[in-house]
Amino acid sequence: MSEILAQLQASIDSRREADPKSSYVASLHAKGLNHILKKLGEEAAETLIAAKDREAEAVIYETADLWFHSMVMLSHLGLSAEQVLNELARRAGVSGLAEKAARPSC
Amino acid sequence: MSEILAQLQASIDSRREADPKSSYVASLHAKGLNHILKKLGEEAAETLIAAKDREAEAVIYETADLWFHSMVMLSHLGLSAEQVLNELARRAGVSGLAEKAARPSC
Amino acid sequence: MSEILAQLQASIDSRREADPKSSYVASLHAKGLNHILKKLGEEAAETLIAAKDREAEAVIYETADLWFHSMVMLSHLGLSAEQVLNELARRAGVSGLAEKAARPSC
Amino acid sequence: MSEILAQLQASIDSRREADPKSSYVASLHAKGLNHILKKLGEEAAETLIAAKDREAEAVIYETADLWFHSMVMLSHLGLSAEQVLNELARRAGVSGLAEKAARPSC
Repeated sequence: MSEILAQLQASIDSRREADPKSSYVASLHAKGLNHILKKLGEEAAETLIAAKDREAEAVIYETADLWFHSMVMLSHLGLSAEQVLNELARRAGVSGLAEKAARPSC
Repeated sequence: MSEILAQLQASIDSRREADPKSSYVASLHAKGLNHILKKLGEEAAETLIAAKDREAEAVIYETADLWFHSMVMLSHLGLSAEQVLNELARRAGVSGLAEKAARPSC
Repeated sequence: MSEILAQLQASIDSRREADPKSSYVASLHAKGLNHILKKLGEEAAETLIAAKDREAEAVIYETADLWFHSMVMLSHLGLSAEQVLNELARRAGVSGLAEKAARPSC
Repeated sequence: MSEILAQLQASIDSRREADPKSSYVASLHAKGLNHILKKLGEEAAETLIAAKDREAEAVIYETADLWFHSMVMLSHLGLSAEQVLNELARRAGVSGLAEKAARPSC
């Protein structure tokens, strides 16, 4: 998995039982699943708005927020970004041939 | 960047001008930004629902869908997952020391 | 309550146990809460997109879709739009005086 | 239109040019469309979460928040809840006969 995603996931996981005051991630874990999902919905809305404004920096920033809060959700449920990347890899493998056939030059 | 994300982003980018009938990604690009963002909102809702059901497989599947459609959006706007990972790395670097100080053992 | 909302809520409620093939609302009830909530998320995204495009007709249309699917959700949970209007009335009553004090001319 | 929705819409409209400090609605108008839409996305997520928890009071409360922020959005764009209700009435009229035919007893 991507080094940054692996490190970030490990860092998020390590804060699962930490003092809520020690970091933002620890406070999210302490507030629980509903709070984490509320933040996820918020970040999805902000990503949409930034994309409609076609402001590149804001799109990158909000997508990072969306992925970050997805990883907090995954961690809170005992899951990880690695499993999401594996699912994406599985799909690419499955659909790869079919899509390849449709493309002329690769 | 993660090999799988890099490959997936390249694959999504390569379909930007492709025949809409040749693949799902090509059809998303052809339908335009509003359609891509509608799908993104849909996948965010499905991720929330799967998380509330605490169904691990569905959470992985829907988060993969959410990230995948984020990458189609990024591609459509001339951006990439690599920029999102760089933003996540930048934040980890910035907050790393502060958070490290708060943790006893690492 | 508004005549139209009252009639619409009664109509939605009457389809709760109907043959899924008999109407769109009956099919939503039959598919269950997760499907109804997925539609709600979709309509919220479409409302945001229409608002960003500042296309008046689309905003009205998508907000109608959002409220309509809210009412299907309420019906599915044994609740009603009347209770939502009562909650809005309660808030207006509560905050009315405070806001009145802040306004010079009414 | 419903008395409560009509009054609420008038109240929201009257705060469009008010001092942002005078009320919550005035502060939303002052912050602009993106902020209002962010709140709308947030309330949609909270409605989904409350519905998944099947907590009646929270569902009513969050749906009221969702409709309320929809009305602030409408007001900000020079539109109104009355137009949304008219659209819902139009649809009921259009589909009424078709749906009636499918129902045995009404």
